Amino acid sequence: MKFYDCAPAPSPRRVRIFLAEKGITVPTVQVDLRNGEQFSEAFRKINPDCTVPVLVLDDGTTIADAIGICDYFESVQPEPSLMGRTPTEKGVITAWQRQCERDGFYAMMEAFRNSTPGFKGRAVTGPTDFDQIPALAERGKLRVNAFFKMLDARLAANEFVAGPRYTIADITAMITVDWAVRFKTASLEGVANLKRWHDAVSARPSARA
Amino acid sequence: MKFYDCAPAPSPRRVRIFLAEKGITVPTVQVDLRNGEQFSEAFRKINPDCTVPVLVLDDGTTIADAIGICDYFESVQPEPSLMGRTPTEKGVITAWQRQCERDGFYAMMEAFRNSTPGFKGRAVTGPTDFDQIPALAERGKLRVNAFFKMLDARLAANEFVAGPRYTIADITAMITVDWAVRFKTASLEGVANLKRWHDAVSARPSARA
Repeated sequence: MKFYDCAPAPSPRRVRIFLAEKGITVPTVQVDLRNGEQFSEAFRKINPDCTVPVLVLDDGTTIADAIGICDYFESVQPEPSLMGRTPTEKGVITAWQRQCERDGFYAMMEAFRNSTPGFKGRAVTGPTDFDQIPALAERGKLRVNAFFKMLDARLAANEFVAGPRYTIADITAMITVDWAVRFKTASLEGVANLKRWHDAVSARPSARA
Repeated sequence: MKFYDCAPAPSPRRVRIFLAEKGITVPTVQVDLRNGEQFSEAFRKINPDCTVPVLVLDDGTTIADAIGICDYFESVQPEPSLMGRTPTEKGVITAWQRQCERDGFYAMMEAFRNSTPGFKGRAVTGPTDFDQIPALAERGKLRVNAFFKMLDARLAANEFVAGPRYTIADITAMITVDWAVRFKTASLEGVANLKRWHDAVSARPSARA
């Protein structure tokens, strides 16, 4: 088994935190996204979509998506559960993970990739080059700020994003908040519940993964 | 249990097809998106994110996301399996469902909502209004066309999107293709493998859902 990672990138960090919570270690290869290694012929053979994370199993099967990889490990080693034990838990946690991804993570990536000079001509992940759209960076920023407010209200009544326990939804939300704060897309001022939750999830040993 | 649906919309159709494949029927309420019923006070109480589909369980639990709802039903009634039986199948199917969603479904929605006159000022689903971005509609169209080509290559060597069996990845891909063809974002000319697969999945009784 081999895990294709890129230490500075937010997407593969989702898997690293997930694995740290489960206490699983996997042989890992770093892919140098900054120098375009994802477009090399060697990496295209592993993932023609030119993205990380990728997990290649011993039988050669490829899982080229962060949540797909988490699904695999949740099924191989269900405890501690991060994606739910009962049908209701599974449905609710998936829905919250996806809302955080859609309204938070993807909006944050839109804001970041469409405004950062280093991503000029590379506004979308994957094998095709696309120009940056400044108006989309602006929209992304507004959406991330709306996401912070939405999550702050949610966390007023819930200890964690999907309810009373830490789940994969917290991982997606924490990485979104970390990235948005680091690049000044949004801030933790005036959102006390979000701040309380962010301090708590950031204090878990897995957050260093 | 109550399923909040909107017959003409592509997102809730994902759930309708999934349920049809499993032979499950659920009491259904139509939400009139065209006339803004998703913004009514009554619907905001059901889903503050103002989107469909939503599933409300008998105990009041709300699952406000298409794939979250599918996760719930896959867990309640695993057969026929649409999300995988083994850890490897689960990981691979999730990854393909998500690639079709990210590069296909979302790109198609970007192209559609950022160019259709009826969505002026409503370019993003959810409670907040956002202006259309014409450049994003153009980018979405290019991405949908790249998606058609990628999927055509994939289906040259695979009967279905995630491999030898019909899965939730085919549902996401079929709805993307249907919508993109209907609104002339892309066409099935020159992509013979995609056409062969599209004919096959469209002939299943579930496709009428």
